[in-house]
Amino acid sequence: MDVAAQLLAGDVAAGARAIRWLDDQDPRGLEVLRRVYGATGRAHVVGITGPPGAGKSTLVDTLIAAVRAGGRTVAVLAIDPTSPFTGGAILGDRLRMSRHATDPGVFVRSMGTRGTHGGLARAAYDACLVLDAMGYDLVIVETVGVGQEEMEIVALAHTTVIVTVPGLGDEVQAVKAGLLETGDVLVINKADRDGFEQTRRHLELMLHLRENAVPQSRKVPLLRTVASRGEGADELLQALDTHAGQLKATGEFQGKAGRRAEQHCLMLARALVLRELQVTSTAQRLAPVRERRIDPYAAAQEIVADLLRGPR
Amino acid sequence: MDVAAQLLAGDVAAGARAIRWLDDQDPRGLEVLRRVYGATGRAHVVGITGPPGAGKSTLVDTLIAAVRAGGRTVAVLAIDPTSPFTGGAILGDRLRMSRHATDPGVFVRSMGTRGTHGGLARAAYDACLVLDAMGYDLVIVETVGVGQEEMEIVALAHTTVIVTVPGLGDEVQAVKAGLLETGDVLVINKADRDGFEQTRRHLELMLHLRENAVPQSRKVPLLRTVASRGEGADELLQALDTHAGQLKATGEFQGKAGRRAEQHCLMLARALVLRELQVTSTAQRLAPVRERRIDPYAAAQEIVADLLRGPR
Repeated sequence: MDVAAQLLAGDVAAGARAIRWLDDQDPRGLEVLRRVYGATGRAHVVGITGPPGAGKSTLVDTLIAAVRAGGRTVAVLAIDPTSPFTGGAILGDRLRMSRHATDPGVFVRSMGTRGTHGGLARAAYDACLVLDAMGYDLVIVETVGVGQEEMEIVALAHTTVIVTVPGLGDEVQAVKAGLLETGDVLVINKADRDGFEQTRRHLELMLHLRENAVPQSRKVPLLRTVASRGEGADELLQALDTHAGQLKATGEFQGKAGRRAEQHCLMLARALVLRELQVTSTAQRLAPVRERRIDPYAAAQEIVADLLRGPR
Repeated sequence: MDVAAQLLAGDVAAGARAIRWLDDQDPRGLEVLRRVYGATGRAHVVGITGPPGAGKSTLVDTLIAAVRAGGRTVAVLAIDPTSPFTGGAILGDRLRMSRHATDPGVFVRSMGTRGTHGGLARAAYDACLVLDAMGYDLVIVETVGVGQEEMEIVALAHTTVIVTVPGLGDEVQAVKAGLLETGDVLVINKADRDGFEQTRRHLELMLHLRENAVPQSRKVPLLRTVASRGEGADELLQALDTHAGQLKATGEFQGKAGRRAEQHCLMLARALVLRELQVTSTAQRLAPVRERRIDPYAAAQEIVADLLRGPR
């Protein structure tokens, strides 16, 4: 059996290989993707994000247990864009999730900047398609909530979960404010800590303001969890299922998957044209600019005119 | 007299107008740039960067005074990429520099994210050319040292000054470590503070390591300033002049200006092709992807193939 067929049958080694091929932009990866694409669009894609120290990995670990207890399967992509290597916290996460390591219904993969030629967001979208085609019921994408690339990653989800903890500083409050705009489910983790009530009231106020600003918006559940003791995981899964149900009832589930495919395509197209531009912009081609015989604007226009088809 | 001629004569209003036109990508801006480009490549472009709170603006203020005391002219671009508006600290900077407001030998302009269509780095490169053409002896680009866009801005300088202060935390140490790699002059500002000696020893060790790692590298001066009292500004200007002299003696002064033009051109070309891609990628063009009738890779290849000229 070839990789595409094995992958469709849920073979973990085949899935990992396809993800690696796509990371490397190996043509075999594109071929596999073309063949399995018809099987995608079914998984419920959940983005989980929040500041460092919010306990996201532990929360994901308990969420995995809850999903498995109900008999469904789950794949996790743990993404750390700040890491040039897949190390540090991500390796720690892996170990923490290792109690699921022998469970064939669970797939966990970490991604850092290394080995993702042409962007972490693209790699995340690619991997998400592969996991979807493998038949996992849920695909969870976990990422630290900072930066534009991560917001792009979060945008791929059907359901976005924002995780925070009591008593974070002002800086994190600002991050939270931005993230709140995209959140479908809000979680206060480590809810047994001092300051829980204050954080809850603060977030409720923000949700209230948001609901007033966007009248037709869905009510965002605010959950409390203590992931280290497994508390609240069932309620979180319930909230995810409720959200997926709402999306399916309104056709948004397919709509969001469609927009994700669109974003993925545009991301790939941007990378392709920029690569072509780079190939065109040789040292020789740039010599007149470097020697100041032509201004940068005029030179850029010439280079781009050479690269692009004229009007037809 | 038209804007280009006025600008070449050093007219501040004409310079400000040209910068605004370029910000807006108004065709008149490109026309002005084309006409004044021959007059560029003469200014000594100095990048000043460092963490928030390092006192960069006060340092620039005292540096302006030192430059003016020697009879030369100076323009300052104060850049804050984190600000969506040209407000906050930047407005404060403006006020602080206002003692030079009536001096025709000084030009200060602040830039935030707002009003810079297509990127702050591009706007900075554009403005730098205009100020160069206006005949300022020094063009100082001041920016907070974080993020990729700012590193791109710093890369435009002939001479990069890294400013730090005694007793910053670990997080800033990491930023500093990255910045140290690109620094030509190192300044410890607020040098009358506790912890100066420790910071000095720490930085000297880092410089020593860097010199060992890159044997042919120039010795990086490590200066102490107390900008709030004007201390050390003359020594900083002296270090800048020494560096410019070294660059001129080896031909690197023109070489760096050439590479800056190259980077500027590539930045503009990237923006142009991405804009063309965006125009091409209509909702209609993306419908097959959105409806999952074609996979994102195949669709991206088709879109890009349509956009680009084939091999000739």
